[in-house]
Amino acid sequence: MGTFTIPFSPEEYTRRITKARAAMEKAGLDAVFVTDPSNQAWLTGYDGWSFYVHQGVILTGEGEPHWWGRNMDAQGALRTCWIRPDSIHGYHDDYVQSTVRHPMQDLARILRDLGLAKARVGVEMENYYYSAKAHEVLQAELPDATLVDATALVNWQRIIKSDEEIAFIRKAAAISAKMVRTAVETARPGLRKNDLVAEIYHAAITGVGEDWGDYPAIVPLTPSGVDASAAHLTWNGAPMKSGEATFFELSGCYRRYHAPLCRTVFLGKPSDGVRRFEQAQIEGIEAGLEAARAGNRTSDIANAFMGVLQKYGIPRQGRMGYSVGLSYPPDWGERTASIRTEDETVLQPGMTFHFMPALWMEDWGLETTETILIRENGPAEPLADVERKLFVKD
Amino acid sequence: MGTFTIPFSPEEYTRRITKARAAMEKAGLDAVFVTDPSNQAWLTGYDGWSFYVHQGVILTGEGEPHWWGRNMDAQGALRTCWIRPDSIHGYHDDYVQSTVRHPMQDLARILRDLGLAKARVGVEMENYYYSAKAHEVLQAELPDATLVDATALVNWQRIIKSDEEIAFIRKAAAISAKMVRTAVETARPGLRKNDLVAEIYHAAITGVGEDWGDYPAIVPLTPSGVDASAAHLTWNGAPMKSGEATFFELSGCYRRYHAPLCRTVFLGKPSDGVRRFEQAQIEGIEAGLEAARAGNRTSDIANAFMGVLQKYGIPRQGRMGYSVGLSYPPDWGERTASIRTEDETVLQPGMTFHFMPALWMEDWGLETTETILIRENGPAEPLADVERKLFVKD
Repeated sequence: MGTFTIPFSPEEYTRRITKARAAMEKAGLDAVFVTDPSNQAWLTGYDGWSFYVHQGVILTGEGEPHWWGRNMDAQGALRTCWIRPDSIHGYHDDYVQSTVRHPMQDLARILRDLGLAKARVGVEMENYYYSAKAHEVLQAELPDATLVDATALVNWQRIIKSDEEIAFIRKAAAISAKMVRTAVETARPGLRKNDLVAEIYHAAITGVGEDWGDYPAIVPLTPSGVDASAAHLTWNGAPMKSGEATFFELSGCYRRYHAPLCRTVFLGKPSDGVRRFEQAQIEGIEAGLEAARAGNRTSDIANAFMGVLQKYGIPRQGRMGYSVGLSYPPDWGERTASIRTEDETVLQPGMTFHFMPALWMEDWGLETTETILIRENGPAEPLADVERKLFVKD
Repeated sequence: MGTFTIPFSPEEYTRRITKARAAMEKAGLDAVFVTDPSNQAWLTGYDGWSFYVHQGVILTGEGEPHWWGRNMDAQGALRTCWIRPDSIHGYHDDYVQSTVRHPMQDLARILRDLGLAKARVGVEMENYYYSAKAHEVLQAELPDATLVDATALVNWQRIIKSDEEIAFIRKAAAISAKMVRTAVETARPGLRKNDLVAEIYHAAITGVGEDWGDYPAIVPLTPSGVDASAAHLTWNGAPMKSGEATFFELSGCYRRYHAPLCRTVFLGKPSDGVRRFEQAQIEGIEAGLEAARAGNRTSDIANAFMGVLQKYGIPRQGRMGYSVGLSYPPDWGERTASIRTEDETVLQPGMTFHFMPALWMEDWGLETTETILIRENGPAEPLADVERKLFVKD
């Protein structure tokens, strides 16, 4: 026997299928074809680094879901999914990166076999793993079917986490805290950035106690000084310098669940100006947490933060966070609700967000963020236990 | 000033633009819109973990290429691209994961400004970062333009590496060798797999001497025993066991260039049956290397390997490798030529392949592979210096 087990009970998966099916029926769909790896994992347990080839889960109105992918990955599905081998379908390697045939031809055959040749089938039009070409081929192969955009249909079913899921996110948050502490402790002038990242990765993957670390869906982002004015630069081999702020945008991962956490370290003595931004950010986060209550909206969190920034006269635009949970590269966000002034999602207990009110200035960047849990009562709970401040190493 | 520099000389980028433009003109295109992050980096130097939002490079028949992406990532483009700030275009955060507007509306505006409203524009239909929805919106916004499938058009220009690129791939291979040696040395019964992976990552990112390690486009794959019969399972926290084979499918990365390398370790004493597979695989690789000569075809490598397997009576099907070089998640392959019996790509000096004749059996897996360079004369050169054998720790 292998060492893989499904992360949750079959009952939890049944709950999810029921939920997804209800959403499907509400949307007037006979079936959905789900390509988002996090949706596949949420529905079936499937877990493997195989999303770079075409694969997905078919959910119809009855019975188990079906997993479909490359032949060699069907072996992985047998080891990681809760569904029966009969419901796992592999296609031949000849289809992989071929210019003369396309995996969607094989999928179309299966959909026809399932009686869906004339059905209304939801597909995730806005997803990394459902290419323009895949859609074109699938539509051509199923001329009598109606392919309907069902982007985020399953993602939205995931936005309120079960207790089992929250327990996983707490474990991820403990790993995130360990990563941030490691980063802060290790940072010093002269240290090459890649050597710092090596320590952060080591902390992430060794995990915390029995809770082994999985790979985060985004690599550690750790830019310094003026490079930190850009949001998504990865590391290089340049040494850390005195007089510079470095932000750590990190997430631990426990069985694909994430709890992102950012802190900033300043090597040397920060100016009063820097301290003022720190103060505004911390005060803004506190205001945001207060507003992050069941019954309020995501926009309330954003507006509370922006209110504080306005008081300090600091301009900012853009998103301030997003729903998080189960995820795969290239994004640890859930791709549903955002924390921004125009987002009107009503907050409910069990929702988890990365509240991410980073400040990117012209020549530096300051990131202090929290993964938060919306509770029955009271303000949101930050899940990681790391002091909320600019860390200074003088 | 920041710490980022373009990896190559402006002349090298000019060479690439000229090559891509020639392919574009041959395909009868007025412009291409390139979403593949590795094509963006190859053409402009752009480097950042921002491919989870829509972004890309526009190349027309004249002048510099244009980089287009999210406002905050335009800051990253300013720091990593060789092109002038005028050629860098950012879109507002409101477009990010919105259900009421789409970034492709902004791209269409820029293409119109560039005089391409009625042009023939190549798009990468089969790419992770060009969704079905993106294509639909772009087509609707540019009703008089003809969007043509230009999947892999730029990738194919990358298949013969320049000397500068080969130097980078050699550095990546040295990091791969360090990772494999670390894995072999660290593996022992009782060690949790995630603790092994933590050491492998540490070796990857600290790099070799001054050559700092970048993140590989695929995480280390390290399955053991029966789990290794599935190709793409990632690690968990289960301890390594005596009597089992574990394969390491790894790549070092130097400034986004890869040189994948796999080896297998057996804890305990392998059976004669295991030894026979090892012998067949090694002999097959040697035959493949002999066939991997300029003027031969990729299929010759595959057939040479399969000839040896046939002699041993071992069945195998599927791909045996692919072109490698510059890459981003989720795949370190270049997505052009494959090593398989039906691929007729003519081998030319400067091509680099991951020759990957893994054997996945019903209850175990054996991976011994090489990244190889096609030379002017003689058989291909394996780029990493690690003994080619099954490593046994008894």
